[in-house]
Amino acid sequence: AQKSQSCRVMCTLVLSSIHSDVILFTSLGSSSLVQRSSHICHAAGWRLCCIEQSSCCDIEISRSYMPKPIGQLAKEIGLISEEVELYGQTKAKVLLSALKRLKDKPDGKYVVVTGITPTPLGEGKSTTTMGLAQALGAHLHQNVFACVRQPSQGPTFGIKGGAAGGGYSQVIPMEEFNLHLTGDIHAITAASNLVAAAIDARIFHELTQTDQALYTRLVPLINGIRQFSDIQIRRLQKLGIRKMEPTTLTEEEMHKFVRLDIDPTTITWQRVLDTNDRFLRSITIGQSPTEKGFSRTAQFDITVASEIMAVLALTDGLEDMRRRLGRMVVASSKTGEPVTTDDLGVTGALTVLMKDAIKPNLMQTLEGTPVFVHAGPFANIAHGNSSVLADKIALKLVGQEGFVVTEAGFGADIGMEKFFNIKCRYSGLQPHVVVLVATVRALKMHGGGPTVSAGVPLPKEYTEENLQLLANGCSNLSKQIQNARIFGIPVVVAVNVFKTDTEAELDLVAQMAKEAGAFNAVKCTHWAEGGKGALALAQAVQRASQAPSHFKFLYNVELPVMDKIRIIAQQIYGADDIELFPEAEQKIILYTKQGFGNLPICMAKTHLSLSHDPERKGVPKGFVLPIRDVRASVGAGFLYPLIGTMSTMPGLPTRPCFYDIDLDPVTEEVNGLF
Amino acid sequence: AQKSQSCRVMCTLVLSSIHSDVILFTSLGSSSLVQRSSHICHAAGWRLCCIEQSSCCDIEISRSYMPKPIGQLAKEIGLISEEVELYGQTKAKVLLSALKRLKDKPDGKYVVVTGITPTPLGEGKSTTTMGLAQALGAHLHQNVFACVRQPSQGPTFGIKGGAAGGGYSQVIPMEEFNLHLTGDIHAITAASNLVAAAIDARIFHELTQTDQALYTRLVPLINGIRQFSDIQIRRLQKLGIRKMEPTTLTEEEMHKFVRLDIDPTTITWQRVLDTNDRFLRSITIGQSPTEKGFSRTAQFDITVASEIMAVLALTDGLEDMRRRLGRMVVASSKTGEPVTTDDLGVTGALTVLMKDAIKPNLMQTLEGTPVFVHAGPFANIAHGNSSVLADKIALKLVGQEGFVVTEAGFGADIGMEKFFNIKCRYSGLQPHVVVLVATVRALKMHGGGPTVSAGVPLPKEYTEENLQLLANGCSNLSKQIQNARIFGIPVVVAVNVFKTDTEAELDLVAQMAKEAGAFNAVKCTHWAEGGKGALALAQAVQRASQAPSHFKFLYNVELPVMDKIRIIAQQIYGADDIELFPEAEQKIILYTKQGFGNLPICMAKTHLSLSHDPERKGVPKGFVLPIRDVRASVGAGFLYPLIGTMSTMPGLPTRPCFYDIDLDPVTEEVNGLF
Repeated sequence: AQKSQSCRVMCTLVLSSIHSDVILFTSLGSSSLVQRSSHICHAAGWRLCCIEQSSCCDIEISRSYMPKPIGQLAKEIGLISEEVELYGQTKAKVLLSALKRLKDKPDGKYVVVTGITPTPLGEGKSTTTMGLAQALGAHLHQNVFACVRQPSQGPTFGIKGGAAGGGYSQVIPMEEFNLHLTGDIHAITAASNLVAAAIDARIFHELTQTDQALYTRLVPLINGIRQFSDIQIRRLQKLGIRKMEPTTLTEEEMHKFVRLDIDPTTITWQRVLDTNDRFLRSITIGQSPTEKGFSRTAQFDITVASEIMAVLALTDGLEDMRRRLGRMVVASSKTGEPVTTDDLGVTGALTVLMKDAIKPNLMQTLEGTPVFVHAGPFANIAHGNSSVLADKIALKLVGQEGFVVTEAGFGADIGMEKFFNIKCRYSGLQPHVVVLVATVRALKMHGGGPTVSAGVPLPKEYTEENLQLLANGCSNLSKQIQNARIFGIPVVVAVNVFKTDTEAELDLVAQMAKEAGAFNAVKCTHWAEGGKGALALAQAVQRASQAPSHFKFLYNVELPVMDKIRIIAQQIYGADDIELFPEAEQKIILYTKQGFGNLPICMAKTHLSLSHDPERKGVPKGFVLPIRDVRASVGAGFLYPLIGTMSTMPGLPTRPCFYDIDLDPVTEEVNGLF
Repeated sequence: AQKSQSCRVMCTLVLSSIHSDVILFTSLGSSSLVQRSSHICHAAGWRLCCIEQSSCCDIEISRSYMPKPIGQLAKEIGLISEEVELYGQTKAKVLLSALKRLKDKPDGKYVVVTGITPTPLGEGKSTTTMGLAQALGAHLHQNVFACVRQPSQGPTFGIKGGAAGGGYSQVIPMEEFNLHLTGDIHAITAASNLVAAAIDARIFHELTQTDQALYTRLVPLINGIRQFSDIQIRRLQKLGIRKMEPTTLTEEEMHKFVRLDIDPTTITWQRVLDTNDRFLRSITIGQSPTEKGFSRTAQFDITVASEIMAVLALTDGLEDMRRRLGRMVVASSKTGEPVTTDDLGVTGALTVLMKDAIKPNLMQTLEGTPVFVHAGPFANIAHGNSSVLADKIALKLVGQEGFVVTEAGFGADIGMEKFFNIKCRYSGLQPHVVVLVATVRALKMHGGGPTVSAGVPLPKEYTEENLQLLANGCSNLSKQIQNARIFGIPVVVAVNVFKTDTEAELDLVAQMAKEAGAFNAVKCTHWAEGGKGALALAQAVQRASQAPSHFKFLYNVELPVMDKIRIIAQQIYGADDIELFPEAEQKIILYTKQGFGNLPICMAKTHLSLSHDPERKGVPKGFVLPIRDVRASVGAGFLYPLIGTMSTMPGLPTRPCFYDIDLDPVTEEVNGLF
């Protein structure tokens, strides 16, 4: 196990040295993998990182397990065949009719996995989610579901591996998980870009046509009759025009009806691609002569940054999704009115494009535990949690005594806070247990250890026992435990064990976690051992789920926007106060005026510190949180204050991952994914 | 029937009048639909076009039929369960292992459906393909498959309906056919954009790094060792560097290895989206400060214009696809060498992204006939035919006495010529029968009738008997029959009957077709009657498939490029000669020098005339075909001379289709598609 872990760490360094940018690993832990799978470590792409002939190839492990036919799994977990759409043998979509059929059944226990403030290497939340689910299911024989986000495909070919978990705690087949899956992200790309095309085409047609010409085209004369479509009637109602007969509109009313009058400088809707394409971060569009000179500056984001992804994650059904997709605000008119997707006439088309994406995707872990993979919104400009619908269906399927383990992105100050204040607020679900993942490595960093970064060997502070550093760093753990307890939920700390961790260190973490109010704190070795390595965690979670909990939100949404931001900053981050930049102040006034002031808050902050400064580790004190700007995702249903600059389009490094990715044309095996 | 056809015609006008651009209808024919489905014509979007309370709602017809479970259909046609991946109940992917299992079985009869030079309204090729397949299958009880292209999703929301056939001869469910299907086009979007991102990122990294820095990153030191990846070894071989040991490269060799030295002005690879987005026709990219000023002009095409779509359509297996995806030329280096996708290191990743797309998609017609929907390359800048693999698998499945009916895009001068000279050349398949679709309307237009355009009522020449116009116009029919016969294949003319056609007119077409050398010419009413309306056609095709045929290509690929172009221009189009613009001449020299001179030719010409001028109807004489430019799709395997300006990105009109498209959240039915 020791040997293999050293391999794992070396591999991190090795792989990281290939790239100049930040690299995140989702799974790191001790391992006895060398005995179990060194024989399968032959993939071309992995020659690079397989040192000492041991293995750290998640895809090799993934491939060495034969998943059970997904239709069989669906039957085993209580779905009827009409509720399951197979996508081959390893993936299926589950129809929302399952939720309707089971609506009177009680929900299972709802467990959210979060973490302390991580190092840039990641501390193993996804792996812990899988390990815990495997332990509860395959080892403790409980009904259980893991619910995770679908990863973006773009980074798979850039600098970051997938997010299927890792080692012996992962979703299989990992190439299916990391690539197209069932096309949900592609549907979001199509829907998002249809909105973008509709915006610019509308501006263009308004600029080049008279009111009369626009009206004639928008409400065409058919067999001598003009008739409004449903979506146009909604627009008339919004404009306060109570007429159903197109010929009766006054010139003024026609003018209001045909002109969205979009102010191009206010457009917040971006085109998207699920590709790391840095050259699309800032572009000028409309430069063909056919667009008659109406060019403007625009940008592409990575698809998972689209508001439609956040809508998918927060919706609770087709009707609600259609409503959210129609109320997305894409810009302001020149008079300051919000212009929505419904104004553009595109609501129905978006719903049609998203009709399959709304169905959660069923997969399984290495140990045959059911997993829902559904939605993957950004954890900064969006709320970073998998879908409400997947959790809801899973909670019904596992039954009252069962467990649903769902993961929240980033640390507890971000993903968990949003899980409670945004996701649970919209879903109405009550969580039972918080699992907080911690590593000795990250805690030492918080205690003052040297910088941890990808591409640089870990300093000896991290590979040798150092109780002092660790004790200091547990301040971050304590704060994150308190953060969870603010919401009234018991916290179980999962210490993701590395081979260099000493017993004294592990005991210290457990002790300090309990002192800080954790229900329990246990060691986990699920990366190397699968569910067996998370048995103690599973038992602790079982007990915690029986403990009394008193769930409450952190703030009332009816409070003024600034107050809500301040409450999060002070109570969760530990800031002295907040400071609004002028742009942020203006936006708060605008959104409040437009009627969006009562939305919950989705903070776009670095995950590498409780504060806004990624360099400040531990529990930063005495800082004022700067709010640079505020944006609105009205369809998804939140305002997002920008604390720093958030990159929404990654790039490709000099030597991208794709150099090592290939398909064996004979065996049809995918090599080189990780 | 008469009433309904008049409805149909009215509908065309009505719908067309909404839009200012060209609108294509894929299905037009006489109909007795009014009795059969007026009760289901209630969709909001269709109120607009439902006159006299009759129906022309293809989606309503589609929805009124319950498709049989696709797994059952797969079993009925002889697929074993391991060869079928279900995608829900109505779509499935068929694995290429089926081809391997059946490799020693004889092929069925291979029938290609093409047409005369069409009006802008289309003459019903897709509908005839479906009608013929239904007649052969459901009525004559032959084993049969229809093979068609997957339509682009972009236009579904813009100005054009889908391409599922129409009336009682269509693929169902048509919303699945017209939307995401199984994600093949989305995979092409992802693959194409990965190439584009790799090009610009590579240029950027080369511009900002020394040879040494690039080398260190491209061949990183891992545990003290540098090692080339497989794809890098291929690049070394291409450069003539026979070294396997990275430390032994000279500075000069390192320089050659690390610098693709792409000349940005020669980049022919474009980004793509499956969205009608006119503002992306010409853009400037790289304007974020992170790209340090290295901006350039670029463009987005619609996804189906990607060379990867043409590769998908022409490949015969995974290994071949991988080879084609690696040899695509994306630009020239500053010294004039072709730069390929393999040079970029992206071959394997593209293959992985396309690993599912390569499997043909199984669907069915209204009458339960199996249909393969697979690949949909442009019919001008690409070859406009569905996939080789779908045809090959279908030919094995139907067996020696069975039939595979495949459709070629545009008229016989374009789609059919490319079907023979490009698709059959690569597949090695020998076609048995050509079905040539004609309408009285289009022939009258060729005879000198007034212009036919979408949005304008048909002049009386088209609605009243006019044998003189028709007789004149049959010149086009004769020429297209001859075009088919040049290849040595018997031709059956299918006259797609409209209700205004008189018996005398229909007899005249049949008579003139036979005089021109058609094996037979028959009337069809499959739009209104389904397979029953194409029974005579099916019987004629059966007989023709027994007739002797002597298939031969039009030209030898080893001929000089200019000669090949001239042969097509003179023999198929009837041109006196060709004229090369300087740009075309230079490209022919360049491509010949680069070793691509022996590729077949894919003419990018208007489909509205045999000549390059869409206004010249009938059989134009005395023209010289201008060759403005020549481009290369080296991976797909053809050169494409540009005869005119080809738009590769459609736009949205003032009132796009999406105004009428919606999903009923209760019934989950899609409304407003057509």
